[in-house]
Amino acid sequence: MSVPTLKQAPIQEHTRILGLGAYRPDVIVTNEDVCQWIDSSDEWIRQRTGIVTRHRAKADVSVIDMAEGAAREAMEKAGIEASELGAVIVSTVTHPYATPSAAASLADRLGATPAPAFDISAACAGYCYGIAQGDALVRSGTAKYVLVVGAEKLSDVIDNRERTISFLLGDGAGAVVIGPSETPGIAPSVWGSDGSKWDAIGMTRSMLDVRDLGLAARQSDSTGDLALLEEAQELYPTLRQDGQTVFRWAVWEMAKVAQQALEAAGVEAEDLVAFIPHQANMRIIDEMVKKLKLPETVTVARDIADAGNTSAASIPLATHRLLQENPELSGGLALQIGFGAGLVFGAQVVVLP
Amino acid sequence: MSVPTLKQAPIQEHTRILGLGAYRPDVIVTNEDVCQWIDSSDEWIRQRTGIVTRHRAKADVSVIDMAEGAAREAMEKAGIEASELGAVIVSTVTHPYATPSAAASLADRLGATPAPAFDISAACAGYCYGIAQGDALVRSGTAKYVLVVGAEKLSDVIDNRERTISFLLGDGAGAVVIGPSETPGIAPSVWGSDGSKWDAIGMTRSMLDVRDLGLAARQSDSTGDLALLEEAQELYPTLRQDGQTVFRWAVWEMAKVAQQALEAAGVEAEDLVAFIPHQANMRIIDEMVKKLKLPETVTVARDIADAGNTSAASIPLATHRLLQENPELSGGLALQIGFGAGLVFGAQVVVLP
Repeated sequence: MSVPTLKQAPIQEHTRILGLGAYRPDVIVTNEDVCQWIDSSDEWIRQRTGIVTRHRAKADVSVIDMAEGAAREAMEKAGIEASELGAVIVSTVTHPYATPSAAASLADRLGATPAPAFDISAACAGYCYGIAQGDALVRSGTAKYVLVVGAEKLSDVIDNRERTISFLLGDGAGAVVIGPSETPGIAPSVWGSDGSKWDAIGMTRSMLDVRDLGLAARQSDSTGDLALLEEAQELYPTLRQDGQTVFRWAVWEMAKVAQQALEAAGVEAEDLVAFIPHQANMRIIDEMVKKLKLPETVTVARDIADAGNTSAASIPLATHRLLQENPELSGGLALQIGFGAGLVFGAQVVVLP
Repeated sequence: MSVPTLKQAPIQEHTRILGLGAYRPDVIVTNEDVCQWIDSSDEWIRQRTGIVTRHRAKADVSVIDMAEGAAREAMEKAGIEASELGAVIVSTVTHPYATPSAAASLADRLGATPAPAFDISAACAGYCYGIAQGDALVRSGTAKYVLVVGAEKLSDVIDNRERTISFLLGDGAGAVVIGPSETPGIAPSVWGSDGSKWDAIGMTRSMLDVRDLGLAARQSDSTGDLALLEEAQELYPTLRQDGQTVFRWAVWEMAKVAQQALEAAGVEAEDLVAFIPHQANMRIIDEMVKKLKLPETVTVARDIADAGNTSAASIPLATHRLLQENPELSGGLALQIGFGAGLVFGAQVVVLP
């Protein structure tokens, strides 16, 4: 059989982050607020997590609303029109529909239709996963400009009475536009997973439990099994984690991944102007800084104090604050690393927009 | 500020599909079975949809189980070990946890740890979206081999009494390994979205309704509002579609997208050995074949008769059957096109493995 030769897309040598946007919702939740629900104190929470407040969204503000806010700023800063976007990627685990994606709606709102649009599920590594994919789409010639958004409304999946993770979490969105560059602006990604720790962070229930308990509750109308009915009424899945496992993994394994990302980029810690880890816990950040032996000249993002842990949104939100407070860092090299439920991780050195 | 020059990943010029696997669950659901729930007939269903049976999975078979079955065959056919995978992508809308991803668990089961692993949400276009991303990851040098899986347990999100979509749906998984090639094996993707039709296919309820109704039901214990309680007990979100809107969009707009994919590949309909559209409805397939003026020499995949609509799994499942029944087509060119909730679409010409 004679097979005609296919075209493949042309290649773009280099990429960079062209613009960055952030959306911080306006409800401020203090440690005092949190302590209405759990037996703790402002002092204990500050010492153990570094968190002072979290931003959370009102009931009528959705993941897509926050994504839109961040995306519009990123596009404006990048000087890119919606019609120029070759793909819209939303990294989220809190879009409350199995389908369609948040990205399809976001693309429509932005006026990016008919750009391809999809959500990715990589939890707190989701932004760095999105950067790896956006970079690949541009360099492979599949898209010229890619919008990557990390957006989470974690307040929708918390149980205020739960002590492993809920009090850490905030809402928000961050977004970047990735596009072609004359010089390298996104170094090779060091990204991966360890599914042997799939149970370390996750939901209290499967959606199938929701279905089966709902069914059982219907039957309990006739059987009068009130305990079952009560269980069915509390069936909404919320997040929890095995904090010890995650803390240890983050401190020991993620410092190695961050080091590998430096090597993949061909640079040293001394070459960095900033270190922007996922904002999971201030103690994890402090431990990573120590293990990486970062010099004093490297500014470390500590947005968590104000914003809490916003999962896929935390790195772009932290980057946004860093550049607002230190505009002179623009153009310098930052090491960013995300890690979370899966377990999954992703890190890369980027030129700050 | 003097900024050190970053490395970016090296480029791979060409890619192709190296191996293909399928998993078909073993419960066969006939039209007679379906008609226990809806007022219809075997004859009507065959005429309007072309579906004779659907394969569905037992309660103890998960999306990840099916993904694993398909992935193992794809890796074996490709001659690729799990340790060689540079990324594991699972396209699904029926993994019943918000987080972690199905892909992280799949990577662990396959022994692919620490490969990066993530799920994507692009509904029935999910397989073609996965091909576009896998191709970009390999060509951009981000990964050498990428596992792309479409896996769906749609029987978990149907309401048997519902007439717009539930009776069409089946379960299953298909998988491919993408890797480097001496010659072009995956042509440029024509992929996109139209979020203005976000409501055309989707879930009956948001997960937030599940939460709020559960809360209301708890309150109804004291208020005695039984109607509310009944509503809360039926709160599990299931799929539905606006069949007319989707049918018209698929027939009119998707034929154009398929034509664009041929142009992007630099080939004509006469160059194809196969046409493998998403298996949504036999009438949509027939209309697309007419509009594309496909010659008789092009074998058309009609797996839907046996398998029903399996969303992200339908194209690799249909390809698998096509190659089993027509092994001489291996090495020839196939046009594949996926489309679904979002609305989203993706198409590309590929060399059959």
